[in-house]
Amino acid sequence: MSRPACLFFDVNETLLDLTAMKASVAQALGGRPDLLSLWFTTMLQYSLVSSAGGQYEDFGVIGAAAMRMVARNNGIELSEAASKDAIRPILSLPPHPDVRDGLARLKAAGYRMVTLTNSSNKGVEAQMEHAGLTDMFEARLSVEDVQMYKPHQHVYAWASRKLGVEPSECMLVAAHGWDIAGALWAGWRGAFLSRPGAQLYPLAPEPEISVPNLAQAADQLIALPS
Amino acid sequence: MSRPACLFFDVNETLLDLTAMKASVAQALGGRPDLLSLWFTTMLQYSLVSSAGGQYEDFGVIGAAAMRMVARNNGIELSEAASKDAIRPILSLPPHPDVRDGLARLKAAGYRMVTLTNSSNKGVEAQMEHAGLTDMFEARLSVEDVQMYKPHQHVYAWASRKLGVEPSECMLVAAHGWDIAGALWAGWRGAFLSRPGAQLYPLAPEPEISVPNLAQAADQLIALPS
Repeated sequence: MSRPACLFFDVNETLLDLTAMKASVAQALGGRPDLLSLWFTTMLQYSLVSSAGGQYEDFGVIGAAAMRMVARNNGIELSEAASKDAIRPILSLPPHPDVRDGLARLKAAGYRMVTLTNSSNKGVEAQMEHAGLTDMFEARLSVEDVQMYKPHQHVYAWASRKLGVEPSECMLVAAHGWDIAGALWAGWRGAFLSRPGAQLYPLAPEPEISVPNLAQAADQLIALPS
Repeated sequence: MSRPACLFFDVNETLLDLTAMKASVAQALGGRPDLLSLWFTTMLQYSLVSSAGGQYEDFGVIGAAAMRMVARNNGIELSEAASKDAIRPILSLPPHPDVRDGLARLKAAGYRMVTLTNSSNKGVEAQMEHAGLTDMFEARLSVEDVQMYKPHQHVYAWASRKLGVEPSECMLVAAHGWDIAGALWAGWRGAFLSRPGAQLYPLAPEPEISVPNLAQAADQLIALPS
């Protein structure tokens, strides 16, 4: 295996620590952290419901709508404004502790690096700024430009063309099984970060890298011949 | 409003009572009924992950894979065989108590009626047979034929062409917000059954009928002029 020509990093949970947003969402959901996984999965489901139906709404707007659905199913009162407020901390999340050093070492090793996210363009700009990671990446790609959510195969095809790189030369780094599955199905390579609560999809091919954090992924990637 | 030319019925939860399957899945998930919503939502999410990635697997196979992901995230041991066994009761579910009479009245009133399901062709055949509903429908449509899950708009377009009916003359009857959303976005009409745990999607148009069960939906449909 030689080095991929470009690394595409998912943002939420992969680079950034969602803990602060989880706290505000659990509070909005009646102080019930046990509902967080259901909320996050419902948000992802409905992002794909939108794309399947030929629609597009901002990821945060879908997340707030999903929160209201989970609230109603659990007898929790939650206004539209409160659901949107609860999501706002997504714009100012800190990076996971392994991220800054891992990215810096990959960059020093000569890797081309971009972000590829379901967040909006404005959203990911604010996220990278707050996390102090803006200068690590050559570009920030958002699904907003194609109005279709990951893991739609068109998103990966579009992203590889944007960078002028063949799909087989692209590698996604992500902490979501569905994102890694989509990238591999699109002919990309993959590096899965098995952060807490993350699982590979059992019905998809396995990525060549599967490690707990970016530090270990960086070790393996830097060891690859150019 | 006049009568739609054809009624398309979703099957799981809309017509059939999932309680028996929920019991076996909760047992497989370490006796934790609190994980059922997360499991069902993960199954739906991954059905769309498959379609987005250009893949297709049987709905039951995806459901079993989603069950193993939820199990692993919660420290529960679950083999592939056990996850598939836990789903099997989906083939022999009883209808909800309001279903047989509601369907019979709609049929007597002259409605064309078909099923349109994410279950496989063999699966829905067994389901209708067990539930004693086979003779209620002129056809059984499964997404297996197009290898793309609801609510992909192509599924509704395909189904309306199969019946030779314009989209605006089709009505979906379903107990899932995402299914009603997809049908309305595809230009269909909709009747939502707000069974326990079902919510309309806040970012989609509202259907013309939204009632707790099929008995009440049948009342409204039969009252429409031909």
